[in-house]
Amino acid sequence: MSTLLTADAVVTVDAARTVIPDGAVLVDGDRIVAVGSTGRLTATYPGAEVTALPGRLLMPGLINAHSHSGLLRGTAESLPVWEWLRVHIDPMHRVVSAAEAEAASWLCYAESVLAGTTTVVDMWRHMHGSVVAATGVGNRLVTVNYTGAHPDFDYFDTLDDNEQLLQRSHGAANGRVSVWVGLEHVFYADAAGRRRAIDMARDYDTGFYTHCSESEIEIGEFDRRFGSRPMTALDRLGFFDVPRTMLAHAVWLDDSEIALLAQRGVAVVHNPVSNMKLASGVAPIERLLAAGVLVGLGTDGEKENNNLDMFEEMKTASLLAKLSCGDAAALDSWKVIEMATINGARGLGLDADIGSLEPGKKADLIAIRTDTPRMTPFFPEGPYFNLQHNLVHAVRGSDVDLTMIDGRVVVRDGQLISQDLPDIIARARASVPGLFKRRSDWLAGHDDLEGVFGAHD
Amino acid sequence: MSTLLTADAVVTVDAARTVIPDGAVLVDGDRIVAVGSTGRLTATYPGAEVTALPGRLLMPGLINAHSHSGLLRGTAESLPVWEWLRVHIDPMHRVVSAAEAEAASWLCYAESVLAGTTTVVDMWRHMHGSVVAATGVGNRLVTVNYTGAHPDFDYFDTLDDNEQLLQRSHGAANGRVSVWVGLEHVFYADAAGRRRAIDMARDYDTGFYTHCSESEIEIGEFDRRFGSRPMTALDRLGFFDVPRTMLAHAVWLDDSEIALLAQRGVAVVHNPVSNMKLASGVAPIERLLAAGVLVGLGTDGEKENNNLDMFEEMKTASLLAKLSCGDAAALDSWKVIEMATINGARGLGLDADIGSLEPGKKADLIAIRTDTPRMTPFFPEGPYFNLQHNLVHAVRGSDVDLTMIDGRVVVRDGQLISQDLPDIIARARASVPGLFKRRSDWLAGHDDLEGVFGAHD
Repeated sequence: MSTLLTADAVVTVDAARTVIPDGAVLVDGDRIVAVGSTGRLTATYPGAEVTALPGRLLMPGLINAHSHSGLLRGTAESLPVWEWLRVHIDPMHRVVSAAEAEAASWLCYAESVLAGTTTVVDMWRHMHGSVVAATGVGNRLVTVNYTGAHPDFDYFDTLDDNEQLLQRSHGAANGRVSVWVGLEHVFYADAAGRRRAIDMARDYDTGFYTHCSESEIEIGEFDRRFGSRPMTALDRLGFFDVPRTMLAHAVWLDDSEIALLAQRGVAVVHNPVSNMKLASGVAPIERLLAAGVLVGLGTDGEKENNNLDMFEEMKTASLLAKLSCGDAAALDSWKVIEMATINGARGLGLDADIGSLEPGKKADLIAIRTDTPRMTPFFPEGPYFNLQHNLVHAVRGSDVDLTMIDGRVVVRDGQLISQDLPDIIARARASVPGLFKRRSDWLAGHDDLEGVFGAHD
Repeated sequence: MSTLLTADAVVTVDAARTVIPDGAVLVDGDRIVAVGSTGRLTATYPGAEVTALPGRLLMPGLINAHSHSGLLRGTAESLPVWEWLRVHIDPMHRVVSAAEAEAASWLCYAESVLAGTTTVVDMWRHMHGSVVAATGVGNRLVTVNYTGAHPDFDYFDTLDDNEQLLQRSHGAANGRVSVWVGLEHVFYADAAGRRRAIDMARDYDTGFYTHCSESEIEIGEFDRRFGSRPMTALDRLGFFDVPRTMLAHAVWLDDSEIALLAQRGVAVVHNPVSNMKLASGVAPIERLLAAGVLVGLGTDGEKENNNLDMFEEMKTASLLAKLSCGDAAALDSWKVIEMATINGARGLGLDADIGSLEPGKKADLIAIRTDTPRMTPFFPEGPYFNLQHNLVHAVRGSDVDLTMIDGRVVVRDGQLISQDLPDIIARARASVPGLFKRRSDWLAGHDDLEGVFGAHD
């Protein structure tokens, strides 16, 4: 039985950026069968069950290409990134339990789908629990273990954990789960760990993901350790010789590094809220796009942002580009929408299935309310066409009315229907006191925290 | 009959930044009678009717200290401010009718109260209609006519319009309406107009409000016209010799101008979203606050932003300060909250009545949902106290559950109850085609638009 979703407009994000006023999407099982005008599709598919969504537009589900599950929201503030890691974050990693980690994933995936994110790239710990959470909430998930592979960082997930997850969960939940190989940072691995991470991504034909060049001080440290700029070092170390590589942040890049990323087909993920909040700097997005680098968009974690609203992230990306370029025309709204959808899909190697509303793709789509003050006036066509600008600058995640992933409705009328939200929140809150207590206890015994970067390998 | 509102926490924004876990606010008529713990207030006022708000916190209603009603959302994009005025905005002002202007105010005030703004400072046209809208929606309103007083800018409101509004509406709606004297910009008035605006503010014992130093090119133009920096010029022209002066934007200030603003008690309004979107620049907020200048916060208009969510504006203010100062500790969350509440009230001379939850003040308050993923975990006290950070960085206007203004509930369960929202939206949408048509017609006859700043007086 196929379902015809009809709305005031369909924003396809196809190559031509087609917007269809009075448009419809025909879904059969987990796939999109047809996209077109409501009139044409109603005539062509008279047997389809119609779900009419007046006062709504349809668009592809958003792809949050960089996030972390977590429970620290609002408690780790006002520090630059490497000090903040040392004081707040790494001590949490030392003590977080598998049950706490799973509770965090349930919370963050529920928040994500409610705000229109259908695919979450999550770098987190104990990710068997994250797979359970994604299976339950219903989101698409790319797991990236928060891996350390160095004696000084032995309190993270290990490459053994990562390999076990690859064997157990890659392709799980009707293909909704993809498992990648992760490193928290290249500095968190020794030579053997780096080699194994690269080999593992190749052996399992999957992607490699890490943080890099988020803050300026990394440049000097890369030079000290590897004698080159960070991107050159990653390339020489072999991190670009894997099926695909995605780098979160990539704020501090020179022109030669941008050219290298383009040449090697490496994708980067822009996190403008996090980069501003931690005073990390401004990623050169217009220059990256001009060079042909794939740029996705991410919220970073609850502890860096402090929410997981990709619409807010889109707006911030637009604002930051305009300010930093000194040009109110910088980073056009369409480019921003593509970063949050098809670009993320391409970077993840999932663009055959997600990232746009086109026949044959997975039915990962969202309905946005257009019957609101902030979508007034509403011009889905004509000389005052304003949908793309208001999707980026006016709409918030709370305007998401329906979220469908893999053909299954997980949010309806703005409410999570796949799971019990109050229960998810209660379980997350119940996990917090123990986690914070154990972190405090650990910190009380370690007032001589190691240096910013830890040891050289 | 008094009402006791009880919630999980009360964020008072008093001088000590008091937060009361399990707190309550007693309201009688349009005033706050008491603020304290629910236990104490329940015992002290056993006869009060209790409105229990579990899973909510209470805080002062937000003060949007700079906005414009309007109907151009998403249709005036990608231009720096002075070109954008010439191509999109001023031609709209030439043709907008009183009925269209009123429809815009209804829309923007409804959007505002739904997102927790209780006081709107609105610079707009034909503002008798704005007073009607505020009376109907229920918000507090400070009117600032979009006034021109120069033959080249004869298509704005006039100082006669402004004076008529002062006589007719100052103090209307149980004091909810304050009428100020406005100029769109000092460049939009000749010497006689400037003199009359200043005299009018003094004669009616009210404030003077204008845009200034939003973009860098104004500095050279001030020098050409008046032989000084903008703030010095405004001071010499007499604009600081009025009961109070508020300046929107104030992005391009040197140290001497900041000292002058502090010395003369002039308030400024920060509009970070607009300043980023139009690539205007970064206002020196930390330096202004350090010098003792009152800084309020505003969204600017639907055409610059493109929404009127003061929570989003708070977050952007925090992010922009941290990035521009290169310091993740810049502009602490409390300072941001104060900008959006008590600082705005002080700048408007309304702090005896609004801006914080304290006995004797007007009952302008909002309830924010805390039973959400983005308010998890929730620490209203103790070592992990995180309310202030999450109010600024996690909460969105859509989390506003209840808005009370002047003791009257205008939003309940997140829904506008003072008026029919679909009708307000429908009236706004019906106003748009005619307005755009007349603007197009006017533009078609004027392809030789005057220079950026218009004529010298």
